[in-house]
Amino acid sequence: MTNTKHVQVLENMLDANDYVANGLRAEWDARHILAVNLLSSPGSGKTTLLEAALPWLCPKDRILVFEGDIETERDAERIRSQGIDAFQITTGGTCHLEAHMIEQAWKLSDRQQPLDFIFIENVGNLVCPASFDLGEHVRVVMVSAPEGDDKPAKYPKAFRTADAFVITKSDMLPYTSFSVERAIREAKQIQPNLKVFVLSAQNGEGVQEWRDYLLEQRRLRFPEA
Amino acid sequence: MTNTKHVQVLENMLDANDYVANGLRAEWDARHILAVNLLSSPGSGKTTLLEAALPWLCPKDRILVFEGDIETERDAERIRSQGIDAFQITTGGTCHLEAHMIEQAWKLSDRQQPLDFIFIENVGNLVCPASFDLGEHVRVVMVSAPEGDDKPAKYPKAFRTADAFVITKSDMLPYTSFSVERAIREAKQIQPNLKVFVLSAQNGEGVQEWRDYLLEQRRLRFPEA
Repeated sequence: MTNTKHVQVLENMLDANDYVANGLRAEWDARHILAVNLLSSPGSGKTTLLEAALPWLCPKDRILVFEGDIETERDAERIRSQGIDAFQITTGGTCHLEAHMIEQAWKLSDRQQPLDFIFIENVGNLVCPASFDLGEHVRVVMVSAPEGDDKPAKYPKAFRTADAFVITKSDMLPYTSFSVERAIREAKQIQPNLKVFVLSAQNGEGVQEWRDYLLEQRRLRFPEA
Repeated sequence: MTNTKHVQVLENMLDANDYVANGLRAEWDARHILAVNLLSSPGSGKTTLLEAALPWLCPKDRILVFEGDIETERDAERIRSQGIDAFQITTGGTCHLEAHMIEQAWKLSDRQQPLDFIFIENVGNLVCPASFDLGEHVRVVMVSAPEGDDKPAKYPKAFRTADAFVITKSDMLPYTSFSVERAIREAKQIQPNLKVFVLSAQNGEGVQEWRDYLLEQRRLRFPEA
């Protein structure tokens, strides 16, 4: 199939990742836990959206967060200060999370605790994380208004593999040339089935719709839960 | 020295990159061309800063721009519309530029044309591009105000290898919790010699100081030019 050693190695690496990811998803399926993987550039507001949405999503002790970062415990500390359990995964240079990292953290967690949701905040990077299934049921790609409406066209893979597209920092739209209509149109050219949200964790606009979507996704996937 | 095949391969790949990068730098040295490599997240304003700074830096025909992107010709088109020559390098999925990509584009350019500056706009990614020397003399890392002041601590490698740190979109500082003092302090903990700029391509604040820095870097490196 492939004609260079480089591609061969990559395929094997991704196969190994998918094997671990499928194992995680099967375990989460059995426990009726919906897993959500958040992808974006650095500074698009992934942690801030979790802070704004999670405390009012469901009982706090039914949520577990995995925070991926190159360095620092800061994001996990922000989530813990909301009363929600969070594991920090520092990759030490690696530009994305891989399924085996999630598996290691998952095995260190208290797996007897019943959960409704697992949120995985990927390393801030709109490119590489798109190639790695982490066992999630829902993949979310986020772009903040100040980043510009050209991001879907320029970083198509993250959009091609996503279920939902969240435009964050909508409170800053008046100070930018960001066209919500253009961003949505170009994102849907890549992935027509994207569910789109425009929200601001700052003033709360759109956050309830985002929570409703997450709850609905869990109900649809686990109607017996 | 190394005990796994993975590390061995990576070291060889980076050695090969450095060999090509050193060749490019030697050629640019001989021609008194200062090469500048811009690194940032997607949407930090790399292209916008080039649009704001380049037309008034030196005669337009003495500047060449290499635009790195996963997809689209949009950034090169934006630069060309300013009357400045630009090559688009689309990586087709690769999350950073490598020296051989620059070498290919450089060989396609009109190398008889005398130049003062080459600007390389890397793929929008605050992680992977930091590992690849592109033959530049000056490496610039940029963070926009809306991204947050925690970026230096969370993405240290880009700062460790940089000469200058540019905080962009300063016009948006009033709408964010970004602390310029904290961002600079944490960046200088990683790389004490960083030259720092705070600017807005929107209202022009700080752009002249940035141009002056570039001109000074060229004079210092090529006093005979």
